[in-house]
Amino acid sequence: MNTNTIHTDLCIIGAGPVGLFAVFEAGLLKMRCHLIDALPQVGGQLSEIYPQKPIYDIPGYPEVKAQDLVDNLMEQAKPFQPTFTLGERVDHLDKQADGSYVVTTSDKTHVHCKVVIIAGGLGCFEPRKPVLTNLEEFEGKGINYMVKNPETYRDKNVVIAGGGDSALDWTIFLAKVAKKVTLVHRNETFRGAPDSASKVFDLANNGKIDLILSANLKEVNGNGKLEKVILEDKWKQDLSIDADYLIPLFGLSPKLGPIADWGLSIDKNAIEVDTRDYSTGVERIYAIGDINTYPGKLKLILCGFHEAAIMMHSAFKYVYPDQKLSFKYTTVNGVNAF
Amino acid sequence: MNTNTIHTDLCIIGAGPVGLFAVFEAGLLKMRCHLIDALPQVGGQLSEIYPQKPIYDIPGYPEVKAQDLVDNLMEQAKPFQPTFTLGERVDHLDKQADGSYVVTTSDKTHVHCKVVIIAGGLGCFEPRKPVLTNLEEFEGKGINYMVKNPETYRDKNVVIAGGGDSALDWTIFLAKVAKKVTLVHRNETFRGAPDSASKVFDLANNGKIDLILSANLKEVNGNGKLEKVILEDKWKQDLSIDADYLIPLFGLSPKLGPIADWGLSIDKNAIEVDTRDYSTGVERIYAIGDINTYPGKLKLILCGFHEAAIMMHSAFKYVYPDQKLSFKYTTVNGVNAF
Repeated sequence: MNTNTIHTDLCIIGAGPVGLFAVFEAGLLKMRCHLIDALPQVGGQLSEIYPQKPIYDIPGYPEVKAQDLVDNLMEQAKPFQPTFTLGERVDHLDKQADGSYVVTTSDKTHVHCKVVIIAGGLGCFEPRKPVLTNLEEFEGKGINYMVKNPETYRDKNVVIAGGGDSALDWTIFLAKVAKKVTLVHRNETFRGAPDSASKVFDLANNGKIDLILSANLKEVNGNGKLEKVILEDKWKQDLSIDADYLIPLFGLSPKLGPIADWGLSIDKNAIEVDTRDYSTGVERIYAIGDINTYPGKLKLILCGFHEAAIMMHSAFKYVYPDQKLSFKYTTVNGVNAF
Repeated sequence: MNTNTIHTDLCIIGAGPVGLFAVFEAGLLKMRCHLIDALPQVGGQLSEIYPQKPIYDIPGYPEVKAQDLVDNLMEQAKPFQPTFTLGERVDHLDKQADGSYVVTTSDKTHVHCKVVIIAGGLGCFEPRKPVLTNLEEFEGKGINYMVKNPETYRDKNVVIAGGGDSALDWTIFLAKVAKKVTLVHRNETFRGAPDSASKVFDLANNGKIDLILSANLKEVNGNGKLEKVILEDKWKQDLSIDADYLIPLFGLSPKLGPIADWGLSIDKNAIEVDTRDYSTGVERIYAIGDINTYPGKLKLILCGFHEAAIMMHSAFKYVYPDQKLSFKYTTVNGVNAF
């Protein structure tokens, strides 16, 4: 039994881009952070789901690969020496007599802190899976629920299933990488961006991909690893496709997990906060990034950055109750002055 | 007489970092922008006051030179083809019968737009100047109110006057560049960061700079260009210093200019806005960046980025009154899909 206890000023739940930038903003106010994430690495969705994808809407970056952004945020946080507990889920939260908290993880790591910051993104999200009897047998042996590294699929036979942006997007991308891409969708029309849908139809019309509409996944077969995907087509007939990989992209199902039981005000899987400081209704608990909601909220990384900066100026009073916060610009002396 | 009339969706007053990023966010929603700035180049304070200074608190940039950030923001805005009127001040604003606005500049450029976005930073700020009889004679001929390019001062005799962060900061920096730096301050203590003040005292103690405290600027002399700065010291005696340059750094005095007369709610030189969409009390006028204020406001560039993103989703209804806004992530298709 692990009985690891960590003492810190702020416990940040979620080590995605917003949690990482929060470390920097906390550091400017001389507050130290410990971060917990259920994933085995920092970066949240960016590192887990689309590390190689370019992002276009980070201010000042006309284009940046998701993983590069994470790496830069880590470097920016580094002078403030954050500590991490990765690969463990937050289990519960205990308020202490002095108002501080102890956060306990699935592996019984205890983080004793003055303030809790929930930067959990969409929560512990899980891919939605197709209902196939022997699905688990091939998970990680040909069935992947996310594209981590497109090179995995070079010169392979790939079946993608789904009708949203991810399915369209990866079909377009992998058409240039894989030996053959087959896109299977249960309807005749796509939920994703019209522009992407028309690109996919073009690819199909030009023979660059196989597009099978109004069809459903029925069976997966193989010997130790995936070899065939069986579909049921619109005429209720079976269709067998040679496949090294099946990528079902049916979206992610967000789960708030135990956070839902902490007495916070929750609206549609998001935590309601006060826009003056992104505090939740519970004292010393803040929520920033995609996990919070407020009038006008946009789920953008850049909005989470702003929320992190504002929030830290409010949390300061719990860490330094006797000090007046003096606001300084980093431009003057750089981060080493902090 | 210039009778130039420009038609655009959005008129952005201020082409600083926040105004530039607003172009990108507007572009994602298919709204086109025209920007007006009193300065002759884009970038606002970053390009005008400290282009070569590193900034440390832009999320995802452990360090970035101010001008590089501006260049990157210009590149990010470029796909949306913003247009610019530079070197002209906004003079007045006329509401049209259909609710749209015409913004008129000092040079009679007319910008007809559906929405006005004030991203004016600290306004048309002006340097606070010392009271010296023949000051104007040497402005631009040895007297500079801001350090644009430190190389100007290489191997020169420089007198810096002031006691705030800028004065301390540039003293420390130019000590390595100039032939000789003399820092003149009217008090015995500095207003700037304690850490910087102690660095300045160290430089003086080690003979790297001359530090003259409790002294005031009294006179400037020269023949066509600055040659001597005369101080009155604490014993009321004159002190003559050979000087190629005098840099008075007494801060900037912000002036809202004609914007102050537009019926907006102003609190301490800043425009009060609603945090749900950063709208002012006047329909179709928004204010973002350092020029606005609201409960919890921090004057950080990164906060202005957030305000720009949120604000555009609200302005959309004035540009496309018959359309429903559909929110898309750039990650999926890049900016060319917009």
